[in-house]
Amino acid sequence: MSVHDEPTLNKKIIYEGKIIDVELHEVELPNGKTSMREVVKHPGAVAVIGITDEEKIPLVRQFRKATEEMLLEIPAGKREEGEEAKTTAERELQEETGYRPAHLHEIARFYTSPGFADEWISVYLATGLQAGAPQTEADEFLSVEEWTLADARVALREGKWRDAKTAFAIQALLLR
Amino acid sequence: MSVHDEPTLNKKIIYEGKIIDVELHEVELPNGKTSMREVVKHPGAVAVIGITDEEKIPLVRQFRKATEEMLLEIPAGKREEGEEAKTTAERELQEETGYRPAHLHEIARFYTSPGFADEWISVYLATGLQAGAPQTEADEFLSVEEWTLADARVALREGKWRDAKTAFAIQALLLR
Repeated sequence: MSVHDEPTLNKKIIYEGKIIDVELHEVELPNGKTSMREVVKHPGAVAVIGITDEEKIPLVRQFRKATEEMLLEIPAGKREEGEEAKTTAERELQEETGYRPAHLHEIARFYTSPGFADEWISVYLATGLQAGAPQTEADEFLSVEEWTLADARVALREGKWRDAKTAFAIQALLLR
Repeated sequence: MSVHDEPTLNKKIIYEGKIIDVELHEVELPNGKTSMREVVKHPGAVAVIGITDEEKIPLVRQFRKATEEMLLEIPAGKREEGEEAKTTAERELQEETGYRPAHLHEIARFYTSPGFADEWISVYLATGLQAGAPQTEADEFLSVEEWTLADARVALREGKWRDAKTAFAIQALLLR
């Protein structure tokens, strides 16, 4: 089968929210039939895996309402309109963990759930970390943990990372 | 800061759809204030990275309406109520690529976008693949490609995998 798309015949805005919008599209399929596609619109996100000179990884533990669980993740945040992804990455790392990176570069950029959402995430690697004090926002309640790369590897082998971007980023460190 | 949760004070169902539901929760924060959380409910998914005895990886290229792009991904599908994740994994692999695995085991299980969605995905590794004919569903239009592990590694280094689960799964193969 060749490359195709699914043109929208009709679109209904279901919800326009603070972070996400939800749309329902009636699309035309390659065989001429129609189907419905539910689409969640999201501004995108950035995430940062940092590694200190002592091979420690700063992580944040926070409650995620969507999952009703405390999750351990690399620092991350939504993209801000008009702000470079790299700047957001640097800011989120510093706000959440206190660390300032000497070097920061993008190692991946991908969709998190392309089956229903347009969210994409830029994953940055931060090195040359200089410690400082975190500055979290008013409705962010999180605690910082520093994991050794060795412990992160064990948790990976045991399938214990519960957040996709974090599992990816730990593997990226191990493959460096 | 200690472990906490965000109890729901009020919940509004925004949308109940075919694949996703959308909820708006008013939650109580640890400091006693309230905040709104948008939550997308999803049944969860399974994905399968297979590798043939010739070190080839079966992938599917398909149009994703949410991203308005053709994406190259490992075979995947939604979880089916009452069906074991492993059974779904085996079925999706066979339907989309024709391959039947002799061995199939879960290598990871994580949330794809915990900031706004409860979707989690089980990633399986399939080996001992036996070729057969794909059987795609009526509204699935996809083409199968087989990539060498070497080519997949190059694409990983160049940050070219656009789908998070696929990037993770390629890394997992390389770390085996």
